[in-house]
Formats: sequence, structure tokens, C-alpha cells
Amino acid sequence: MDSQICPRFEKAMNIISQRWNGLIIFHMLTNGPQRFSQIEAAMPISGRVLSERLKDLEHAGIMKRDVFPETPVRIEYSLTEKGLALTPVMEMIHSWASEWVKVEE
Amino acid sequence: MDSQICPRFEKAMNIISQRWNGLIIFHMLTNGPQRFSQIEAAMPISGRVLSERLKDLEHAGIMKRDVFPETPVRIEYSLTEKGLALTPVMEMIHSWASEWVKVEE
Repeated sequence: MDSQICPRFEKAMNIISQRWNGLIIFHMLTNGPQRFSQIEAAMPISGRVLSERLKDLEHAGIMKRDVFPETPVRIEYSLTEKGLALTPVMEMIHSWASEWVKVEE
Repeated sequence: MDSQICPRFEKAMNIISQRWNGLIIFHMLTNGPQRFSQIEAAMPISGRVLSERLKDLEHAGIMKRDVFPETPVRIEYSLTEKGLALTPVMEMIHSWASEWVKVEE
């Protein structure tokens, strides 16, 4: 039955649509590799929730966490190739929002 | 501060990412105007939840509900111009899913 939802699409939507994930991905695409505190400062999200979301995104292969053995240790989050491949999705959402979404309403 | 999230993007993400909304929009784009029962049959969602989501999408200006004064009355849901404008977003998500998402994992 061709009206059935494609399971890959459904899974992709679940990843992207998990609360905060879209905003985190958009932030990373716009700003490049970030420390935890930089991501936290950019959105109204608690450290606990951000930490959960970053683990989910790592698990989904969208983000990675690099530890640089400096003193003090530096930890940076960045998008993987799979995450960077979401660029056109985020651009299209941004473009749709610019044309159709009013913030005042 | 340019790392702040664009409020329009945030609002757009909230609409698209509300559970089921992406799948409903994708289904409507693929299948055209539908009766309630047709949408319900295409995804694993209860009638109560689908009814809520359709009201939300109507409120957001993405879907509309047309009543045809036949006997029995026919009610069809369809995407508005604003909803149809999500076509490239959904296509990009579908394309990303095809390339990057494995259903077995």
C-alpha cells in the first residue's frame, strides 16, 4: 500500500524532530565545532537536557565528541558527515520559516 | 549575538517537529486531499491524537478542512499553500533518510 509511511523517513523525522535536536543541529551548522558551554549559551535549555540530547545525537551518528588532551582538557562537539548532510534540510526549513512563519502570531 | 537561534526557525521547527506532524504532512504531500479515515489508516496513530494534530496543523495554517455538502457529508483535509511550501523540506528529509538512515539499526 503506497500510502504507508516510509520507515526510513519516519525514523529520520523522529531524530530531527526530537525536542531541541533541530535547533542544536542548526546551531552547529551555523557555528561549527563548539564546547558544551557555547551550545548551552545559545539556546534556552538546561545543561541536563542538552547533555541528553548530545548523547542521543552522538548515538544517532549525527554528532561527535572530541577530547583534546590539553591542560585543562578541551572537549568539542561537532557534526559528523551524516550530520553535515542535514545542511539542505535545515536550509529549507529556514527558508520556509522566513517566508511563512510570523513570530508575532 | 549571532549564535542565537532565529526565532522563526525555532517556531518552524516546533511546528514540523511536533510528534506525527512531519509524517502527516509527508503523507498529504504524497497522497493529496484525504478523508480523516484515509490518513488514520496510513499511520499507527489513534483517532483522538490524529484529530488533535489536524487541529494544530489547521491552526498553524498548514492544513485546511473542506466540508462538501453531499449526502452523506464529505469532509476532506488538504494542505494549504503554506503547507505545500513544505514540499522541499520533506523531500530533503526523505533524501537524507534514504542516504543515511538504516532501519535495522
